[in-house]
Amino acid sequence: MSADPGLASWLQLTLTPGLGAAAIRGLLKQFGLPENILAAPRAQLERVAGPAAAALQHSEETAAAVRNALRWAESPGHAVVTLADAAYPRLLLEIADPPPLLYAVGRLELLGRPALAIVGSRNATAQGVRNAEQFARAFSAAGLTIVSGMALGIDAAAHAGGLAGEGSTIAVLGTGVDVTYPRQNAALAQRIAQSGLLLSEFALGSAGAAHHFPRRNRLISGLAQGCLVVEAALASGSLITARAAAEQGREVFAIPGSIHSPLAKGCHALLKQGAKLVESAEDVLAELTAFQRIATASTRAPSPPAADEPLLAHMGFDPVDVDSICARAGLAAERVSAELLRLELAGRVAALPGGMYQRLN
Amino acid sequence: MSADPGLASWLQLTLTPGLGAAAIRGLLKQFGLPENILAAPRAQLERVAGPAAAALQHSEETAAAVRNALRWAESPGHAVVTLADAAYPRLLLEIADPPPLLYAVGRLELLGRPALAIVGSRNATAQGVRNAEQFARAFSAAGLTIVSGMALGIDAAAHAGGLAGEGSTIAVLGTGVDVTYPRQNAALAQRIAQSGLLLSEFALGSAGAAHHFPRRNRLISGLAQGCLVVEAALASGSLITARAAAEQGREVFAIPGSIHSPLAKGCHALLKQGAKLVESAEDVLAELTAFQRIATASTRAPSPPAADEPLLAHMGFDPVDVDSICARAGLAAERVSAELLRLELAGRVAALPGGMYQRLN
Repeated sequence: MSADPGLASWLQLTLTPGLGAAAIRGLLKQFGLPENILAAPRAQLERVAGPAAAALQHSEETAAAVRNALRWAESPGHAVVTLADAAYPRLLLEIADPPPLLYAVGRLELLGRPALAIVGSRNATAQGVRNAEQFARAFSAAGLTIVSGMALGIDAAAHAGGLAGEGSTIAVLGTGVDVTYPRQNAALAQRIAQSGLLLSEFALGSAGAAHHFPRRNRLISGLAQGCLVVEAALASGSLITARAAAEQGREVFAIPGSIHSPLAKGCHALLKQGAKLVESAEDVLAELTAFQRIATASTRAPSPPAADEPLLAHMGFDPVDVDSICARAGLAAERVSAELLRLELAGRVAALPGGMYQRLN
Repeated sequence: MSADPGLASWLQLTLTPGLGAAAIRGLLKQFGLPENILAAPRAQLERVAGPAAAALQHSEETAAAVRNALRWAESPGHAVVTLADAAYPRLLLEIADPPPLLYAVGRLELLGRPALAIVGSRNATAQGVRNAEQFARAFSAAGLTIVSGMALGIDAAAHAGGLAGEGSTIAVLGTGVDVTYPRQNAALAQRIAQSGLLLSEFALGSAGAAHHFPRRNRLISGLAQGCLVVEAALASGSLITARAAAEQGREVFAIPGSIHSPLAKGCHALLKQGAKLVESAEDVLAELTAFQRIATASTRAPSPPAADEPLLAHMGFDPVDVDSICARAGLAAERVSAELLRLELAGRVAALPGGMYQRLN
């Protein structure tokens, strides 16, 4: 990633205090690449992103943070993945608010694998912890990458189970990716940095603020094709993740338990709302046979860029509208629009007046 | 019931060896009341019901069984309810194969109340037994009559809970109503005979044959608006009852449990098939608000016969076809046909040529 000359601009965008993700998306939509945003006149920026955009233009503090992040990204195993990168997770492009960039430590290729989120209570029962670990182990052996939030209890057990198999695990943090939280999971974080992937949209060094965690939860569900809740009380962050999963069109799975167990009540609430009841790993795998096809495909090495962008093959080099691309590719408009945005940001296609797109290379 | 002069004919029909319920329904459809069947020429009977119908015409053995049943029905609290009786449960008329008659001991008026079936394993866990008893108690207090099968375990606990409240309980037996089975439930059977209702379609003195129990199960579900399974293994008679309930259009409810408990697996299988997950009595009552309206109505004393047959009000005294009655009454054709059969058997309406019906009184 350190070779990307545009990375400094992406970092400057996201490290500018007061400039939120929605404002950044608005600016990207209007101006294209981050370089263009940073070169635009202040008045134009403010029209799109409000007064906060003024802060984009010069700040020694932001510049220092950018230099620090660029230095950090030089270290082996560290990466910053932007919306314009081919490594940016496809599934995240489908969600309502994909983060402009992600800090990553570990095996970046895990972002391209089929994934299942497993979440649950920090105060899990011993049986719940064992269930999470054993289910994660079975899914990982079947080639699914386990996504969770590195919390104590169910999350930690899910990561541990994931690490035991081919699928491995992705931990999405509510802190900077270089911050170890909670402390009790320090050894687990180290194992994930080596054999899995630590991921965060928050700036390096960020402490875990309360409002980070619901934002983080949407990435846990967004990175995966489905979300399994193992044990959860009725008022639980896991239910926020499950709701995000449902809103993102992901399959929601829940493990039932005794009607007298407070930690089963969250799962039962989900089951009443239509989540799939899970007794065994097979229940999930049967539901996600599509996963397994993808899993088989993903065991090959990543393809070169051109073949890596199947949408380009459907575009030719003449201007074409989104509906035609959808029809040729057999994909939904939301998906195609998201892909086109990414390709535009990557300089592969140009947006033309009248909603037309043209392939550039 | 002992005052019914036609009862001997009903008993003779059902006590004739080799004549099954389907054959009896065929004969009733063809000839009307049982008296007409018994007066019909043997050749005509055999055309409808096959060679077994020959046995209808004279058998000292059957005559003795009829005399015995008539004598039994004279005792206080004993009754034989035929398809032609107003006391015959309305909901049973909706099922595919309503029994021609039912032997009953206890409070016959319970057949007119809103009811919920509760079934489950004979080898239930202590918690399962407690759940069954507590749920049944709550439903009974809410005015629902608890229907179950008098087996050990969940059934017995459900009956006990039902007896504690206003709704009371109905035990549907796979033996003759005068046979105590299983022995361990003798005291419970006595309590039900006094404050609830024992019910069976099988002849007095019948021992419990294996093929009786699936037949019996369809009555447990058929008598109730819904069926709650508390604990059940995968290969369990309770699942037969639940399947019958679903086929009869009744709501199926199941209580979840640990994925490691064999006795939760039957419930989980039902939940995967769309049964409603139940954590509390309120979950069921909320689903069955219609019940509660009926429950309120049923606390009044039974109305006199004429007002008791709302279908008659929709018929006038002119010949009318089934479709018109359906339209006037706002009921489905199956329901109206079943009611018309019952009213015909009761001598309240006459079936005319061309599928027309006429009210007689």
